[in-house]
Amino acid sequence: MTIKTDIGYSTRDRIVVRGKDLPGEVIGKLDFIETICLLALGRVPEAREKTMLNALLVTAADHGLTPITLAARLTLLGAPESLQGAIAAGLLGGGNTFLGTTQNVCEMLASARERLPNDPDDALITKAADDLVAASLGSDRGVPGYGHPIHTRGDPRVPALAELSTANGYFGVPWRLAYAIEESLSKQRRRRLPLNAAGAMGAIYAELRLPPLMARGLALVGRCGGLVAHLLEEQERPIAREVWDLVLAQDRRGDEQI
Amino acid sequence: MTIKTDIGYSTRDRIVVRGKDLPGEVIGKLDFIETICLLALGRVPEAREKTMLNALLVTAADHGLTPITLAARLTLLGAPESLQGAIAAGLLGGGNTFLGTTQNVCEMLASARERLPNDPDDALITKAADDLVAASLGSDRGVPGYGHPIHTRGDPRVPALAELSTANGYFGVPWRLAYAIEESLSKQRRRRLPLNAAGAMGAIYAELRLPPLMARGLALVGRCGGLVAHLLEEQERPIAREVWDLVLAQDRRGDEQI
Amino acid sequence: MTIKTDIGYSTRDRIVVRGKDLPGEVIGKLDFIETICLLALGRVPEAREKTMLNALLVTAADHGLTPITLAARLTLLGAPESLQGAIAAGLLGGGNTFLGTTQNVCEMLASARERLPNDPDDALITKAADDLVAASLGSDRGVPGYGHPIHTRGDPRVPALAELSTANGYFGVPWRLAYAIEESLSKQRRRRLPLNAAGAMGAIYAELRLPPLMARGLALVGRCGGLVAHLLEEQERPIAREVWDLVLAQDRRGDEQI
Amino acid sequence: MTIKTDIGYSTRDRIVVRGKDLPGEVIGKLDFIETICLLALGRVPEAREKTMLNALLVTAADHGLTPITLAARLTLLGAPESLQGAIAAGLLGGGNTFLGTTQNVCEMLASARERLPNDPDDALITKAADDLVAASLGSDRGVPGYGHPIHTRGDPRVPALAELSTANGYFGVPWRLAYAIEESLSKQRRRRLPLNAAGAMGAIYAELRLPPLMARGLALVGRCGGLVAHLLEEQERPIAREVWDLVLAQDRRGDEQI
Repeated sequence: MTIKTDIGYSTRDRIVVRGKDLPGEVIGKLDFIETICLLALGRVPEAREKTMLNALLVTAADHGLTPITLAARLTLLGAPESLQGAIAAGLLGGGNTFLGTTQNVCEMLASARERLPNDPDDALITKAADDLVAASLGSDRGVPGYGHPIHTRGDPRVPALAELSTANGYFGVPWRLAYAIEESLSKQRRRRLPLNAAGAMGAIYAELRLPPLMARGLALVGRCGGLVAHLLEEQERPIAREVWDLVLAQDRRGDEQI
Repeated sequence: MTIKTDIGYSTRDRIVVRGKDLPGEVIGKLDFIETICLLALGRVPEAREKTMLNALLVTAADHGLTPITLAARLTLLGAPESLQGAIAAGLLGGGNTFLGTTQNVCEMLASARERLPNDPDDALITKAADDLVAASLGSDRGVPGYGHPIHTRGDPRVPALAELSTANGYFGVPWRLAYAIEESLSKQRRRRLPLNAAGAMGAIYAELRLPPLMARGLALVGRCGGLVAHLLEEQERPIAREVWDLVLAQDRRGDEQI
Repeated sequence: MTIKTDIGYSTRDRIVVRGKDLPGEVIGKLDFIETICLLALGRVPEAREKTMLNALLVTAADHGLTPITLAARLTLLGAPESLQGAIAAGLLGGGNTFLGTTQNVCEMLASARERLPNDPDDALITKAADDLVAASLGSDRGVPGYGHPIHTRGDPRVPALAELSTANGYFGVPWRLAYAIEESLSKQRRRRLPLNAAGAMGAIYAELRLPPLMARGLALVGRCGGLVAHLLEEQERPIAREVWDLVLAQDRRGDEQI
Repeated sequence: MTIKTDIGYSTRDRIVVRGKDLPGEVIGKLDFIETICLLALGRVPEAREKTMLNALLVTAADHGLTPITLAARLTLLGAPESLQGAIAAGLLGGGNTFLGTTQNVCEMLASARERLPNDPDDALITKAADDLVAASLGSDRGVPGYGHPIHTRGDPRVPALAELSTANGYFGVPWRLAYAIEESLSKQRRRRLPLNAAGAMGAIYAELRLPPLMARGLALVGRCGGLVAHLLEEQERPIAREVWDLVLAQDRRGDEQI
């Protein structure tokens, strides 16, 4: 029986991660993004890769009141003694509907790239996109990464991420496929269904050739950062009880006073 | 009833965080650490503050096989469909014993600083440390942030963090108190009880004058990064079942074969 | 190193819990409440104890839309692939504010009983209650188990639980203390602050002389039952997205259309 | 926008669940299993249904040291302030590998029953089983509910559950299919792959014609009961640190002393 990790280990006087001395070669020498790469992949990212990873974590760090931040705030109301519980409750909502989509898009685009020749022309890309959309008609999941409940005319994060990808040499087959699928899908559905931020992030993870599970994982790291901000605000200026009251006011029964 | 967050909001065509346009002024412009600060505190950190925050997240990102990474890996074994579940299970172990200690130390040192004059001499620091240690004798919690099950002669991360703090102008009253408590505690217990990494991180959060809850929160963000690495490895080269077998082998009953 | 549990073990052909053969002596012979007792305490409860445990779990099983059920439903919206994640998110809100209060009340009443003689007269009970209320004035927590945001004139579950306790011989010092504290607290606050369901449940756990941690634990088991009902309904007739929309509608900014 | 649950609601003086007055008609009148049914399905179960539900929850309540109980114990070590966190961490391991299997088996058997006539003869059952096994060859999931790492010659809970089902009139098409699949699978794999407890529970949920999601949900309720027992024991006689030490001892590096 061998139980062993390559990520790191401690002895009485040393801590080693991926062959580097943590106090001497990592703390104060590598920043957080570089360290995540070192831990997960065993290597420090190159500069342009690091730029993209920062943008991915920044995009995943929540803003406003989403189901994830609401769940976290409601949890802190019930268990103020456990910040880790409220953060965990929030992250648990990062699944196939919201944040985990990034992983699903990354898988879809990376495996479509596998079936294409190097440097495919636009006709091949269009064909591959049409095939993906056609295949999705039979499944119950649909194509992940398109449409948004609020940003119905287009997700404003997508062009920013596309531009950054281009500037850093990461606008290749996955991005081209992602946009071609938008065309194909909108034609087939007869209404605009624009690529959303989770879809664009999935395309970038495929461009970076990172394992798809890492896409879901890093999206959760980014969101964890946003949750800290929301829970700090909740501690200082709570709104969870108002959210509860608001829901109860909708659920009133006949004349009975709540 | 007002339900409102200052952190951010979305309209059909825009996303705004802390008054900044997310696609135009944040994505690709600020890195992840700067964005966390912006979201949580409403401001971008200065350079030396950012250096320290990176070091804090890097130090909190796990290495080796700790109870937190073991719980996460065992959870992925049972529910491979939910990476977010395994990460949440891991983070739930970041409480008063392991990671949350950082918050408790930060609170202790920040409130001790409040009771001291500006620029206290060493005698005042020693007196304050002795008082804290004496007060802890009566409580059931003890002084958080000292001693380590593996690094019994001293935690190798502590001098690295102290040096980085000094270089960046963050070695003030909290750090001096933290070391003075080590002296006082070791004298009182009649054995060396060195400051550990959670204690040193708590001192730095107090130096940075950040809210103590943020100390616990950012420790969880850092750990979340480490968990992604462990769960990627678990997916590729699983060890959770071996951990289980190892435990069962210890729990064997008499002659009965398991 | 000994790693051993007294709760149960498996061999190739047998499963034994607390010395009983699971397939032969437990499945189909003991019901769920009896099995929980067997696992946790090593014994089957007597009939009147079982009646009370059933009532405790029934009372803890949620009804209506509480912060806990809302967090669970919002989590299922984001991660429909993981029912366990939505249930975990819900349970994480069962802490010091809502469900865990049961444990805190149980601890308070059980330790107050320790300081009283057997069969104390009403004057002694009143004195003990006054002392507890006076002591709470200095602490930041207050007395747990009193007041309710909706049931401001009294929690309708409390008389039902009191009556059941009386009928089963479990109306002793903890219940008498619980009601005396209500008097003392209302006098001191100059407004009625009635015992709530969590308080009454805490009194019953103290009557049953069960470990206080078990009070928090069984409250979570009961709530887990209620969460299954809510998540089944959410899967069939979802409301989480409406809850989100409702919150966003409150958080509208100026003229900007969401 | 309508936000409404049929499960229950509160007014100032009343609590109503599924049309019944909670204090007057439920607490002390219905036991926990009956209440779960009432909440989830809107009806009280008949006696034989209740017998089966009790057996299902009892079977799902853990025994011994499984990955789920280990994750919960390791989490309590790190965050002793939050029992709900340790329970949540445990439940998060109840997914597609371990406990959620029950749901998957229930879905598989219920939908196979749909495609069969009423009262099918054995040849039809065998044919349906062979078809399911053949179809599973192409998929990456395999047939859920068969084989066990410890009970390699047969899971001792299965005959107990089968007998109880027969005695209560619940041994119909799902059970017959479950056993026929065992035959078909063992023939095809050329080694015995016996039905396990999760498989048998899945068959019973299909016999009871309950929604498959309820199978996963109730398995979690049952397990929650077992987790309370393990965490009580962990609080009194902890083993989590020994588990950690045991793992570290396996991960030793060369001569370096840990």
